This record gives sequence, C-alpha cells and structure tokens, in this order.
Amino acid sequence: MSLTIDLNCDMGESFGPWVMGHDEQVIPWVTSVNIACCFHAGDPGTMRQTVALALKHGVKLGAHPGLPDLAGFGRRVMAVTPEQVYDMVVVQVGALAAVARTQGAALHHVKAHGALYNMAARDVGLATAIAQAVADIDRSLILYALAGSIQVQAGRDAGLTVAQEVFADRSYQDDGSLTPRQQAGAMITDAGQSVQQVMQMIEQGTVTSLSGKTVPLSADTLCLHGDQAGAAEFAQRLHQAFEQSGVRVQAV
Amino acid sequence: MSLTIDLNCDMGESFGPWVMGHDEQVIPWVTSVNIACCFHAGDPGTMRQTVALALKHGVKLGAHPGLPDLAGFGRRVMAVTPEQVYDMVVVQVGALAAVARTQGAALHHVKAHGALYNMAARDVGLATAIAQAVADIDRSLILYALAGSIQVQAGRDAGLTVAQEVFADRSYQDDGSLTPRQQAGAMITDAGQSVQQVMQMIEQGTVTSLSGKTVPLSADTLCLHGDQAGAAEFAQRLHQAFEQSGVRVQAV
Amino acid sequence: MSLTIDLNCDMGESFGPWVMGHDEQVIPWVTSVNIACCFHAGDPGTMRQTVALALKHGVKLGAHPGLPDLAGFGRRVMAVTPEQVYDMVVVQVGALAAVARTQGAALHHVKAHGALYNMAARDVGLATAIAQAVADIDRSLILYALAGSIQVQAGRDAGLTVAQEVFADRSYQDDGSLTPRQQAGAMITDAGQSVQQVMQMIEQGTVTSLSGKTVPLSADTLCLHGDQAGAAEFAQRLHQAFEQSGVRVQAV
Amino acid sequence: MSLTIDLNCDMGESFGPWVMGHDEQVIPWVTSVNIACCFHAGDPGTMRQTVALALKHGVKLGAHPGLPDLAGFGRRVMAVTPEQVYDMVVVQVGALAAVARTQGAALHHVKAHGALYNMAARDVGLATAIAQAVADIDRSLILYALAGSIQVQAGRDAGLTVAQEVFADRSYQDDGSLTPRQQAGAMITDAGQSVQQVMQMIEQGTVTSLSGKTVPLSADTLCLHGDQAGAAEFAQRLHQAFEQSGVRVQAV
Repeated sequence: MSLTIDLNCDMGESFGPWVMGHDEQVIPWVTSVNIACCFHAGDPGTMRQTVALALKHGVKLGAHPGLPDLAGFGRRVMAVTPEQVYDMVVVQVGALAAVARTQGAALHHVKAHGALYNMAARDVGLATAIAQAVADIDRSLILYALAGSIQVQAGRDAGLTVAQEVFADRSYQDDGSLTPRQQAGAMITDAGQSVQQVMQMIEQGTVTSLSGKTVPLSADTLCLHGDQAGAAEFAQRLHQAFEQSGVRVQAV
Repeated sequence: MSLTIDLNCDMGESFGPWVMGHDEQVIPWVTSVNIACCFHAGDPGTMRQTVALALKHGVKLGAHPGLPDLAGFGRRVMAVTPEQVYDMVVVQVGALAAVARTQGAALHHVKAHGALYNMAARDVGLATAIAQAVADIDRSLILYALAGSIQVQAGRDAGLTVAQEVFADRSYQDDGSLTPRQQAGAMITDAGQSVQQVMQMIEQGTVTSLSGKTVPLSADTLCLHGDQAGAAEFAQRLHQAFEQSGVRVQAV
Repeated sequence: MSLTIDLNCDMGESFGPWVMGHDEQVIPWVTSVNIACCFHAGDPGTMRQTVALALKHGVKLGAHPGLPDLAGFGRRVMAVTPEQVYDMVVVQVGALAAVARTQGAALHHVKAHGALYNMAARDVGLATAIAQAVADIDRSLILYALAGSIQVQAGRDAGLTVAQEVFADRSYQDDGSLTPRQQAGAMITDAGQSVQQVMQMIEQGTVTSLSGKTVPLSADTLCLHGDQAGAAEFAQRLHQAFEQSGVRVQAV
Repeated sequence: MSLTIDLNCDMGESFGPWVMGHDEQVIPWVTSVNIACCFHAGDPGTMRQTVALALKHGVKLGAHPGLPDLAGFGRRVMAVTPEQVYDMVVVQVGALAAVARTQGAALHHVKAHGALYNMAARDVGLATAIAQAVADIDRSLILYALAGSIQVQAGRDAGLTVAQEVFADRSYQDDGSLTPRQQAGAMITDAGQSVQQVMQMIEQGTVTSLSGKTVPLSADTLCLHGDQAGAAEFAQRLHQAFEQSGVRVQAV
C-alpha cells in the first residue's frame, strides 16, 4: 500500500478589480483547490475562471465557504449561529456547484475558510452545521477539516467522508492543535523542516509538538498558502520532495 | 382542452432584519414563486424559509436573479456585460438550487428581476446570457420572460421552455410592450379590468392596447406583486375570478 | 436645581427599499436621536431624511456608528481591533456630520450601536478607540455610554463629556450591569415599573437590582426602542410620566 | 506670471486585504491626490493611511466619491438619480473630511470617480447634484472636473472654484471631448507626446485633436494613473519634463 498526500490550496480569492494570489503559478503543484464563493472573497467571474483553471490542470474542485465579511477577508470571528452557518454554507457551496456544472464538472470537497474554519474546529454546534449543510447538499462531498479537531468527528457523524488537513508551515501543540500564530515558534519557515514534519505525519501518523512530544496526527491533505511571495516555489519543492520520498501526491 | 394560467409572485425579498412583502398571505393564491437570491434582496436564511413556505403550499420554486445592488433593490439599470450577467445568474440560480435540494426539492423556473428583467427584454446579448446560464445549469428549467420580448426568443434559442409573462396591473402599447410606468394610463388599478385584460390574453391570445388596438399576446404566467397593501386580497380575487371563468390556475 | 432626563432613540435604520422603525411617530416624544450611518443600517438618503426629520422636531442629532454587518444589523459580535473600530467610527461620524452640515446643523453626540456598544462597555481597548475617534473629530461631541460601564471612563479620559445611558425596559444586576437578555427577568414589560425604575435613577442615583439590592447608577439619558409595536405609545407615556413627576425632559 | 500645472492621482484604492496601486511610489511626483471613500474602493483604514501618506508628502487631499459598486470598481454606469448622487457625494466627502480632521488636516478638493465622473461630464442633472453636494458641505472645496465638460459650468454655477482636468495619455476629439477608449488612437503611449500635449494645453490653452484640429482646452490639473505598471516612472518623467520646460508643478 503506497503512501499518499493531497496538496490543497485556497484559490479564486480575487475580488472585482483586485487580484490576490498566484493561482496560475501554484496550481501545477497541487491536487485540489478550495475556491472562494463571494462571501469572504471571490466574485462570480473569478469563480468561473478559477473552476476553468482547475479543470485545465486536472485538479479537484472544492468550495471554500466563509463568513460574510469581505473587508475582513473572513478572518474576523463573528458571533454567527449554527443556523446562519448552515445557511451560508448551503448557498456558497450551491453557487460554486452551479459554476462547476456549467463547465461539465462537479465539486469534490468543501473546506471552510478562515475564522469559520477555526471556529468549526472548536465549536461543535458550528462544526455540525457545516457538516449537515454539506451532507444535505450532496453526501458524496468530502469535508476537509483540521486534523484532530471537533470538525472531523462532526463530519463523520453527518455521514461524510472527512479528509484531515495538516499544515506544513505551522507547528503543533501537545494536544495536536496548531500553535497560535502570535506565539513564538508558531511558524515553520524552513522548507526542509516543513517536509520532514509532513513526512512524519504521513509515514507514522504523528507530529512532534513544539515542546518535543510525539503526538498522534493523521494527514490526508496538506494546506499550501498561495498568496505569499514564493508560494509557487514552495509548492513545487514540497511536491517534489514528497515524490522523491515515495509519497504519491494525489487528491483524496 | 382547458385554458390555464400560472400565477407567479416575487418572494423572499426580506433582507437581514428588514422584512418585505406579505409572503405568507399571498402564497395561498399563487402557483409559482420567484425567490430572491441575495444580490438585489434576500439572504441565506430568508431563502431557506421561503423555499420551505413554498413547499408547504405546493407552489413551484423559481430563482429570481437580479443585479448586485441591494440598496437599489436591483431596480437601477447597470452597465453590465453579457459575461457578467451569465456569471451572476449562474451563482444565484445555483445558490437557490442548493437550498431547494437541502429540502428535497428542485427548481422549476428562473425569472430575472427588476432592471435585469427589463434589460433582457430589450437587449439580445443580455437575454442570451441569461438563457445560456439557465440552460448550462439545467435545460429542464423553465425561463419566465416578458411576453413578446426578445427574451422569449433567446430562451427558445438556448433550448429552454419559455413561459410568457403578462401583467394584470399594467397597460400595453401597440407593439405589445408595457406602457412605461411614468406614462399616463400605465397602471391598471381596477381589479375587474385587470381580470378582463388577462382573460382576453388567455382566451384570445390578444391584448387591447392603451390606444385601442388589438395586439397578439400570449399569456402563460401572470405576475402578481406581493409587496403592496392589499396584495393578498388582489391575488385572491384574481385567482377566484379565473376559476369562475373556467380557467385553471396552475403552474406552467 | 431641577431634575432632567434626555430621551434618546435609534433612528434612520431603514435601508434602501426596506423600512424599519416608526421614526415619525416616535420622534415627537424624544429629545435626541442616534442616526445609523450605513454600516449596520441606513443609507445616504435615509440619513438625509432622518436629519431633516430631527431638525423639524428640534431634536438633537447623534451619530450611531456600528459594525460593518448589514445582514446582522450590527448585532453580531465581531473580532475587530481597536484600530479598526477607531477608523469605522471616524468615517461614520464624519459621514453624518456632513449630512447635518448640508442642512445647516451640527452633531450633538455619538452613541455606538448594538454589538459595538456592548463590546465597548466591557473592553477598554475598544472603548478607548471609540472615545478617541470622537475626540479627534470634535471634542465638543457628547459620548453616550452605558451607565456605569468602562466606556464612561474611557470617554472622560479622552476629554469628552459623557452622558450615562440607562434603559427603562431592562432590569439590572447587582454590579450595575444589565441583566443579559436570555436570563429570566431581563425585560421589564410593565410601563409603570419602567417609569419607576428611571425615576429612582434620576432622583436618587440608584437602581434596585433584580435581586433587590440598591445599586448606584446615574442616568443622563434614557434609551427608547423605536422598532417595536407600540413604540410611540410607550415613548409618549414615559415622556408624560416624567413631566408629571417634575422631571424636565430635555437633551443633555 | 509663471505657468503652473497640478498633477493629481487617484489613491487609496486598496480594499480590505486587497492592494491596488503604487501609492508610495507615485506620491512623490504628484501635488494632489483623490482618495477613495469606500463606495467603489477604499476602506476606513486605507483612508486613514492614505491621508497620512499625503500629509507626509505635503500633497493636497481630495475626496474621490464613486458609485456604490465595489465589484465593478465604480466603473459601471448605473441609473442613479441626482438626489441619490447628491446623497452619496455628501457621505463620502464627509467621511474623508473626518479622517483628515483627525490628522489635523482639511480637504482641498473633490473629484468624482469613474462612471460617476463620466456621467457628470455629460448629464447636467448629475453634474449639478455633485456640485451642490460639495458646495453644501464647504464652498471652499475645489471641484475637479473634465476640462470643457458640463461639470465645469455646473461647479461654477454652484459657486465653486473649478479645476479643469486634462489627460496626458488620452487623445481628444474635435469637440474637445476625450476619444472613447475603444476607438483607435484613443491612448497616447509615448511619454514625449504626452508631455507635448499637456505643454500645449498649458502654454496655448489648446489641444490638437486626433483629426488634427486645434481645439481650445484649459488645463488646471493633469490626471495621472497610479495603478499601471510604470506609473511612478511615468509620473516622474512628466513632473521633470514640466519643470524643465519652466512649468511649475503645484496644486491648484
């Protein structure tokens, strides 16, 4: 049985006249993309173009629903109810599904964005709302969720296949959660160390926490960031490092 | 062969804390509804509630895509391109289709809203964009279009079934177009005259223009306005008048 | 020295085609209004009309800045930074100040709306940001703040005159804070009891908490809600009750 | 009497997480800036930062009000009424004026953006609405208007000082209007030719139209575009070319 990893990246985050990310440069190195759906980023034209780009590269399509906060890019926590989250996920996934359909394609997965993703990793009500929305639209959609978080279980409880998502550029805590960004040691900037961390997740199902503990952690999909300088180069290096290590890079 | 007419009404036009329309009062008297999709009105929760209301009353579900102009309620003409219109129709129809799917239902039709509806009645490029968007999502969706307008032909050219829409409270010009609202005699306020105008359309396929000419005009569906005082009473009167005249009131 | 109280009410909360509140009915009974500034409600035309309405009734003009969340009416807590709050208050107050100036008037006060008001009552960073924004625009503007809260001190520290705001329809806790809405006994629905509570604040500078304690609480201005059924009648009753008790109803 | 020209540039057109323009690179070469006010671009934080940048460089501050169309960047014509335009200009100018005030500064001018600018150059009702809004806020504000257009007269009729704006990178028609962008020869890409065209406007008060005619045209201020590649270099070249020709580059 060969080891595999999916490389996913957020895309389609331009809005109107404003461009974001390096989608064309990064997409050759990933196997699935999460496309913004107009709430935190994206617009109908960008959705169409991003779906077309993904199809051209044979990359799996995912919806990337976020909070209704363009100015804050969906990164500001908002006190939304589970019902509001359910509704906002349904319309966002539905919008992207229609865009895909007009191009003869179908969605593969759903991954919440930014603050919504983080909130769903901790709050079972919100996690369940997202999972239920996805399941009610199409039970064959895969839910991407933070590895080891509440959202993983919520997705399974809703009858969904869940892909556990890990990060190459973030360190982990003893309980398997991500080290908060504002804390020292939160970010991993060395590419070699990034690859090593993910290889350990894939081969051994563990991560070495910031304090040195070995913590169980499954990795089905790895999140790459596409909006930073050098994003494409980093994606390429990771992709190639996995292949050289005998890990197949392919969608979930 | 019995004569039939569909009675449609715009619904789900509340937004956040703001309520609009008398959906619950009007819905018993109509056979199809056009539900706002967040661009000119509506929000994800209102979409869900309005779909539920329609299903409860056995009324057909339609998407009601509009221009991205909440403050102007989609009634202000905007210089949008056919490509932008295509994209905005796809995401709006897709969003509502997903809401319907989560309740075990499917969409029945699509009707453009406000300025977009009026623009598509005159501009073949925009009419084609709407029709193509609908056809690319699902060729079985019915396109509601202004009777006798360019949009009717654009819909048929795209392979769609088109329902020609008429108005009970508007007078018509010699060329079969609506009398512009700002012109004298544009509005028909007498309910009896409204019924008579529509009966003539159904039975004879004609309308008597403001100037007195008999003009050919087909009527598949009649638009009722749900946001005015007395909307429910007017809907009820029309519904009953048709039935008393032997016209079956049913969806297209 | 005569006892006085200001009666304030949120106004101008319509948006585009959507109407909210009973501004025309309530305004005869209040002495100052807080006008929405397009972030949580309101639009430029509504701002103009509401300023005109207030000037016609000789009522003091206040800006009512809120969070950028139309769909949630500014009532959903958002993780905004003090800097973001400073900026959003400046532009909202500035916008309304310009509307007032075009009608030959000037602003009298500023009161934060909804979640922003509640957050500023607890978070000194946000309270200071609001106070500093107001002071930097015009140090003669009065800050309306929840009586006894952090925001009162933040306003004074910024060199502002602060009006302590109390509620007639809410009960208080032993620490002088409002009983959370979801708790039993939070709302006072009896008008007589409402008047009595406010009279005690005015005459004795205290409130009797839900548990029966006498707690110090100053009352400079009383908040009336204008969007509920019977809002105008309630406002009128309070206004008249105060006058009958020898309390002058006038702006701060 | 020495010849002078103002060089103005649109700035502060970033929005939330999305960056636009090269404000820091261009600003050393201009003498006045037009700052977006949240309707077509900009956000409260960007407004503050752009005002600070302009003050640091001793550049005059202008408000740049636009249509409420972020996704279309205010470039799509919308059927807005004069009253709506009046209102939207008041709140946008007022918002920026407040931002300036918090930094101890005042606005110098107002220039409409994009479609609103173009509409006001042709439609006397809209031109008058803009001029009246500016005059009602502060009659000392200078109105920047397309040279030779209806808006120039509308501004003067409202009692405002008007600065006639010309373009270095656009050719002109026989009637003094800009050659529409979609027409051949509309754009001037040669920097030498750009300088020459503007020099002729300054020195002789004329422009040579695309067809070769000499047409009267006054130039008080020259619009530079800051969002294109090489914007800063082009601004620098123009600035230096003017100074070498004995034209003083300074604000109106």
